[in-house]
Amino acid sequence: MAPADSNRPQLEIRSVNLDTGRENVVVISRQSKALRAEIFRGFSRVELRRNSKALLATLLITDDDSLVGPGEIGLAEPALRRFAEPAGSLVTVTPATPPESLEAVRSKIRGQSLSAREITAIVGDLTHYRYSDMEIAAFLIGSASFMTSDELIALTGAMAQAGTQLKWTDPIVVDKHCIGGIPGNRTSMIVVPIVAAHGLPIPKTSSRAITSPAGTADTMEVLARVNVGADEMKAIVAACNGCLVWGGHVNLSPADDILISVERPLSLDTREQMVASIMSKKLAAGSTHLLIDMPVGPTAKVTNGTEAMRLRKLFEFVGDRFEIAVEVITTDGRQPIGNGIGPVLEAQDVMAVLANEPTAPNDLREKSLRLAAHLLEFDPKLRGGSGYARARELLDSGAAMKQMQKIIDAQGPSDCRTELSELTHNVLADRDGVVSGIDCLQMNRLARTAGAPLDKGAGIRLLKKIGDRVETGEPLYRIYAFDPSQHDLAVASSRLASGYTIENPKLLQGLTKP
Amino acid sequence: MAPADSNRPQLEIRSVNLDTGRENVVVISRQSKALRAEIFRGFSRVELRRNSKALLATLLITDDDSLVGPGEIGLAEPALRRFAEPAGSLVTVTPATPPESLEAVRSKIRGQSLSAREITAIVGDLTHYRYSDMEIAAFLIGSASFMTSDELIALTGAMAQAGTQLKWTDPIVVDKHCIGGIPGNRTSMIVVPIVAAHGLPIPKTSSRAITSPAGTADTMEVLARVNVGADEMKAIVAACNGCLVWGGHVNLSPADDILISVERPLSLDTREQMVASIMSKKLAAGSTHLLIDMPVGPTAKVTNGTEAMRLRKLFEFVGDRFEIAVEVITTDGRQPIGNGIGPVLEAQDVMAVLANEPTAPNDLREKSLRLAAHLLEFDPKLRGGSGYARARELLDSGAAMKQMQKIIDAQGPSDCRTELSELTHNVLADRDGVVSGIDCLQMNRLARTAGAPLDKGAGIRLLKKIGDRVETGEPLYRIYAFDPSQHDLAVASSRLASGYTIENPKLLQGLTKP
Repeated sequence: MAPADSNRPQLEIRSVNLDTGRENVVVISRQSKALRAEIFRGFSRVELRRNSKALLATLLITDDDSLVGPGEIGLAEPALRRFAEPAGSLVTVTPATPPESLEAVRSKIRGQSLSAREITAIVGDLTHYRYSDMEIAAFLIGSASFMTSDELIALTGAMAQAGTQLKWTDPIVVDKHCIGGIPGNRTSMIVVPIVAAHGLPIPKTSSRAITSPAGTADTMEVLARVNVGADEMKAIVAACNGCLVWGGHVNLSPADDILISVERPLSLDTREQMVASIMSKKLAAGSTHLLIDMPVGPTAKVTNGTEAMRLRKLFEFVGDRFEIAVEVITTDGRQPIGNGIGPVLEAQDVMAVLANEPTAPNDLREKSLRLAAHLLEFDPKLRGGSGYARARELLDSGAAMKQMQKIIDAQGPSDCRTELSELTHNVLADRDGVVSGIDCLQMNRLARTAGAPLDKGAGIRLLKKIGDRVETGEPLYRIYAFDPSQHDLAVASSRLASGYTIENPKLLQGLTKP
Repeated sequence: MAPADSNRPQLEIRSVNLDTGRENVVVISRQSKALRAEIFRGFSRVELRRNSKALLATLLITDDDSLVGPGEIGLAEPALRRFAEPAGSLVTVTPATPPESLEAVRSKIRGQSLSAREITAIVGDLTHYRYSDMEIAAFLIGSASFMTSDELIALTGAMAQAGTQLKWTDPIVVDKHCIGGIPGNRTSMIVVPIVAAHGLPIPKTSSRAITSPAGTADTMEVLARVNVGADEMKAIVAACNGCLVWGGHVNLSPADDILISVERPLSLDTREQMVASIMSKKLAAGSTHLLIDMPVGPTAKVTNGTEAMRLRKLFEFVGDRFEIAVEVITTDGRQPIGNGIGPVLEAQDVMAVLANEPTAPNDLREKSLRLAAHLLEFDPKLRGGSGYARARELLDSGAAMKQMQKIIDAQGPSDCRTELSELTHNVLADRDGVVSGIDCLQMNRLARTAGAPLDKGAGIRLLKKIGDRVETGEPLYRIYAFDPSQHDLAVASSRLASGYTIENPKLLQGLTKP
């Protein structure tokens, strides 16, 4: 401990009943014996120390002794939990020295590239909550303009090593990942039971929705508990060959979650950060073989073949360096996959496909079979080219559904509200014609406005897809919402832009139903 | 108001006793009738609305009804002051929509340049506290890599127009500004009384220290009140021809202060942002003629002639576009100017020069005369080339000191503690030789560690300057501190790096005392 600390009075920890999200916040009295008010200012950063333990936090100052007295320091959630010292423990408080790795961030902003050591230091400080939001933003934006191949590799590796790292004894552990952007598209929940039924281990961790109306974790939660820790997850995979759990609870690549928490409000989205994010999670998950689903379409994340190829090569490059066999396939990203958008509606689609119901959405079934086929081909025991037939056999025979039930039982019941929302509104065609386009961005926006994913039963059910003929006044899709104000907003938004393009079929001779 | 708002319950404003610096913070009960807890998260951004009034704020959530009840919303300082509605007033709360101008910030990050309209919108949102820290960082870093000339002009103009704009009836209103970085260097406090004594109006507003141990406002505050509003400032200038007040109180270019509050913790420093910052303040201050002091030296902000020329041209370019006559002079930035570093010590230097004391630091005197000479030459009534003689006459005759006393009396007494710190420590030469270098950065750091500028009496008094002969054990400078722990830290830091380079005089034949 620095010599100066011995002079500093100590403060007693107490809890203050404030929830400050993921930011560490502490409250100190303006009359505190331990701080000189003129040095500490509201919202400045301070460092708490007790023995060898340290925590960086944002400071609030109060004059209310009943909240925090002069001899105390109030810790809000999550600071109290993270510092993990009981109330009454003594701590010293000093103005925070910014994390040393911030110097590297400044170099990056000035246009220099970073060494692996610098990047590891940055990721370490991120993971230990030493960066403020604005410092995280500085790193992200500094890296957004360019990132060298070496930086990308270093970032991916450092992020993978900064949290839980799952190890498997099986020689082949497969995984799949979609880069996102397409509403519906819950293929994992069909692919995992097919592949697991075949016998290949597929320990799938998924994210919750970040900017979309449903992530796989949100949708699986309609059917089963997804907040599963690493040890329990291993037991489930040992019993079922697969699982469908929330990655956040397993603590894979926590730095990635922290970066995403700033990327999201700033709507930052760069190729390198996407690849580092996905690959760090897969590395930490211990996958050996990875299939990337890359939808391409006018309103998808990837809009053309050139961009698709560049992104594919970036995934392959990182995969090769970390010895993960990566296969990237481009898929049809012109419209939503399946009919439901929103957790409950998507779960209904998934179960309909697994149950081989005649009304099940065929695009979701076919895409899932195609992805499962690619994954099954990773099995050296399977005859080359027979992946699709095997996938179909497992789905049609009910083996996949049986496996899904086994996984659901192993993960246990969910405690969240899973009924469909009651307030509905049909959006109607305003002309006769053929559906020639569905705007994925607008469909995501409408489903979120209606309340998804926080309301699991909110969202959109598509009644028409590209290539379908429609007549004026015929319903295109149905909006589901619980909250009247959200219902009204979604309806108002659909009036401004339905998201559907309907054209005169005579002008669409070349268009075939996908 | 959007239709959805009519459905939203309203919350009663109450004050919560928390000081949150410059960030708007509100507290809501987790049981609040007005928010659905799953949508609002701790530290997310919310928007308060009452009639046409709106405020963006960071949200904290509490379960403590005594702090904030379910029907209430707690506003911390400064949110309460800025929203300016009495306790008990009803407001609605919604998740905040990020300010629209953020879309332009994202374009900038993607490499596009911005239109004047976009920049004006950004500056408007900044000034109205609609940007979070991380959004401000996004703008700064997005602009740090490049800024076009048009963007620079638009930013300068928009910032100047976003706050108070002083107007003067005099045809010539002069001003000076140093780009900073050199410890000591309190020339404004000598130049202003000289120029004012001559009769040219010089309404000087200065900043407080940002990363240095003393700004002119901090040092002037040792002698007089500097928190002077715009109207009062005008009256002082009418009576004295000049003033030395804190710019922050006058609210000139408030967006600049907001940008600086993020630049500082991130240590961002780009030429364009520096020029926009300085020129927006001068434009808002109504100056017609501006002298820029640009110190050049190995540890100054500008380290070589090439960089000095580029920066000079940038100042001239912006000056020309806004019709301010800008003159930039490069000055010796190899070492501190004067002997004191820290508000009280620097004020002592200034008063010694104004009083023509024989022990007054000659470098501070000569530099001030040179700057005053340039400013006096802006007076069309003065014979070309006679500026220096006139400045010296006003200083030597005591006219400048008399003018300074008049300004001090007009601004009124300061209420801050102005004695010199009692804890002192001499840093000694560790060899015989000649001082060949003094590290400005290290001297700034030491003086800040000792407590300056928050402790006005803390800092450093230099006892040797470049060219001085020293013997082993002879004092180089003295550290002053109030706080024992800060004293110890500064002493420890001086042991690691004294900041002085001492060389064998035989190797320094070419060196002349500056």
